[in-house]
Amino acid sequence: MNLILLAQDDIVTSTRARVRDPRRLTHLRQVHRAKCGDIMTLGIENGLLGRGELLSLTDEEACFDISALDQAPPAPLPVHLVLALPRPRMLARSIEHATSLGVKRLTLLHSRRVEKSYWQSPELDPAKIHQHLVLGLEQARDTMMPTVETAKGFRPFVEDDLPELLKGRRGLLAHPGMPVACPRGIDDEAVLLIGPEGGFIDWEVEKMLEAGCEGIHLGERILRVETAVTALLARLF
Amino acid sequence: MNLILLAQDDIVTSTRARVRDPRRLTHLRQVHRAKCGDIMTLGIENGLLGRGELLSLTDEEACFDISALDQAPPAPLPVHLVLALPRPRMLARSIEHATSLGVKRLTLLHSRRVEKSYWQSPELDPAKIHQHLVLGLEQARDTMMPTVETAKGFRPFVEDDLPELLKGRRGLLAHPGMPVACPRGIDDEAVLLIGPEGGFIDWEVEKMLEAGCEGIHLGERILRVETAVTALLARLF
Repeated sequence: MNLILLAQDDIVTSTRARVRDPRRLTHLRQVHRAKCGDIMTLGIENGLLGRGELLSLTDEEACFDISALDQAPPAPLPVHLVLALPRPRMLARSIEHATSLGVKRLTLLHSRRVEKSYWQSPELDPAKIHQHLVLGLEQARDTMMPTVETAKGFRPFVEDDLPELLKGRRGLLAHPGMPVACPRGIDDEAVLLIGPEGGFIDWEVEKMLEAGCEGIHLGERILRVETAVTALLARLF
Repeated sequence: MNLILLAQDDIVTSTRARVRDPRRLTHLRQVHRAKCGDIMTLGIENGLLGRGELLSLTDEEACFDISALDQAPPAPLPVHLVLALPRPRMLARSIEHATSLGVKRLTLLHSRRVEKSYWQSPELDPAKIHQHLVLGLEQARDTMMPTVETAKGFRPFVEDDLPELLKGRRGLLAHPGMPVACPRGIDDEAVLLIGPEGGFIDWEVEKMLEAGCEGIHLGERILRVETAVTALLARLF
């Protein structure tokens, strides 16, 4: 928690915010060892961040002075990440990695090698996903909440949604065996598509290439999805 | 398990290997749904890899034909990774990420902001570390076992060991606020140093710069150690 991220519900007045949930109160007490008068890094969800004083701390709440928040959050990555739905624990970590790296749009996609049971996972509960987004933002000192969508049909996504997403954006399909190595340090707005464990099937690859994606690879090593997400984002941007 | 990694103990003759541990037997049965006659990807620890037949599979053992292994493992990364000892769970994942990306030399370093209790963690048991190295190799289809060392004194490491390590190698200290952005796609042999949560302290940074390291940063976002390890390796190499 490198930033105390304040949701709209936490804001009392334009100068005052109040945190009441056990997770943040415990963290303030046990990790920050916070006490009244401490100056901490605060940020308002989808707003500014900066330094502010901890005005009071009890078992029930922590109050902060938010009158001096004046910094813009760090720049987002210019990418829409499309991720074949990973297994639940991998999903949680992948969301946190991607959020901390600055991804603001994430689509979770069905594909042949995604186990159908993954779509029933409690990790897909919007409240759970929100929690991982918050953890990623708190880690990276960012305030801009990403949006997460699901696309439970591969064909409608690739035929109807993907062509729209690719208007003005570079489509990059990360898949082992593609002819081109992942480019480095691009400036383009991009859509980055990453397959499930076991990869996209050939037909899916063909459909994405037909839709206008470039196929890229990260070398002969096969990476776990969460490692691949971070490695691709770090190399591309 | 994209590769069945065979240790010296698993080799029966030059053409035959035998796997007996429950982890791999269960994985073969439940994930691979393996059956006699299947052709699988096999590799000998610190040796060649390739395809080989599953000759038999019982509750106690799986036998493989290893007579046709003829491929070299993927190229290693030309880097010695020096990681301030992370908290135990983060350590396990960082080792797996780094191994799957091709790191072959890892030093776990003490620094001021490493909690002393981390050095007592069962995760530092050599057998535990070996397990995470194996998982990283199996993931990436690699056979070359990394070496992991510990350096429990920062000063002896930076004054005695680091200058030796930097002979013929580029020293890269990843630390927030350093003047230069992390370079991309370098070919140099390198030593990459990554701090603990909370970062190296100023004195430690000075000592590493004095020893000949260049300070590099990954931008204003603060990343978890395991995310930073992958992001730095993916951007550098």
